[in-house]
Amino acid sequence: MPHLHLEYTANLTQLDTDKTLLRLNHALVASGQFGAEFDIKSRAHKVESFRVGTGLNERGFVAVRLALLSGRSAQVKKQLSESLLAVLQDIGDWPEGVQVQLSVEVRDMDRDTYSKVAIG
Amino acid sequence: MPHLHLEYTANLTQLDTDKTLLRLNHALVASGQFGAEFDIKSRAHKVESFRVGTGLNERGFVAVRLALLSGRSAQVKKQLSESLLAVLQDIGDWPEGVQVQLSVEVRDMDRDTYSKVAIG
Amino acid sequence: MPHLHLEYTANLTQLDTDKTLLRLNHALVASGQFGAEFDIKSRAHKVESFRVGTGLNERGFVAVRLALLSGRSAQVKKQLSESLLAVLQDIGDWPEGVQVQLSVEVRDMDRDTYSKVAIG
Repeated sequence: MPHLHLEYTANLTQLDTDKTLLRLNHALVASGQFGAEFDIKSRAHKVESFRVGTGLNERGFVAVRLALLSGRSAQVKKQLSESLLAVLQDIGDWPEGVQVQLSVEVRDMDRDTYSKVAIG
Repeated sequence: MPHLHLEYTANLTQLDTDKTLLRLNHALVASGQFGAEFDIKSRAHKVESFRVGTGLNERGFVAVRLALLSGRSAQVKKQLSESLLAVLQDIGDWPEGVQVQLSVEVRDMDRDTYSKVAIG
Repeated sequence: MPHLHLEYTANLTQLDTDKTLLRLNHALVASGQFGAEFDIKSRAHKVESFRVGTGLNERGFVAVRLALLSGRSAQVKKQLSESLLAVLQDIGDWPEGVQVQLSVEVRDMDRDTYSKVAIG
């Protein structure tokens, strides 16, 4: 906890995933919501097969999902969501002629049934 | 919003993901539930490593998850689920000798903490 | 139902996904919670692009999500979570010098809007 998933469409060729994940993780650390930086587990996945809507324009997206153990307030979650979106907005530039949508979802993981162990 | 994820096992070699995603998106547009076709963000992911149950028969699956901003009725979500399943049923044919399971999950994304911006 | 997703970071090179998925599925069958072994749909995904926290140590993770139709008690879900974590703990050995985190999330899928069909 937390788990972060970033998906990006393959037409966003300039996206530097290493840099982006590190910046997202730094934003989460800076929120003060998490006890240990070590707990933040983030991954990026390039989406090769996608379709945005039904139109013919070239389109793409970056979609982040942040999964937290349940119990945080809506206000805290909204702030986390906005801080991650700010990182996504800052990392562009996006390719010419591609309509890009950036989104961040925050969802709860049930704290009572989440299991974890750290090794090493 | 909405986000659609389609996973399919690699043994379903005849699946045309471009055509399938477009048909799923058209079904969502036809539902009248979404303000703009542009908002529908769909992706397909081929699952190379999988196991269905514990038996030895050859098996596969297509699993769709549709994520919506919270607030729609169970009835509306059920109709969306069934309309997407109907698309999956219609796109077969499936390989001989493979037991295939098709499923659609509809889940809510918390509207209050979802952030989004469109660029270009 | 159920759906199981296993993600593992690419630096955990010794992980045998076929064996791991089969053992996880056997643990689910042994729980007695599921009517048919055939219903258990599990997949493994190797995460090539990831970042754990902000530190410089080599780190990795195995993250399992189990999605169940809604209605089971917290106690049952906790037992399922712990039995899957026990499998993950048992399958190591993990690479020297990598800090590995193992986690299991159990989440509900809305039973009223889940659609499914089996073919063949």
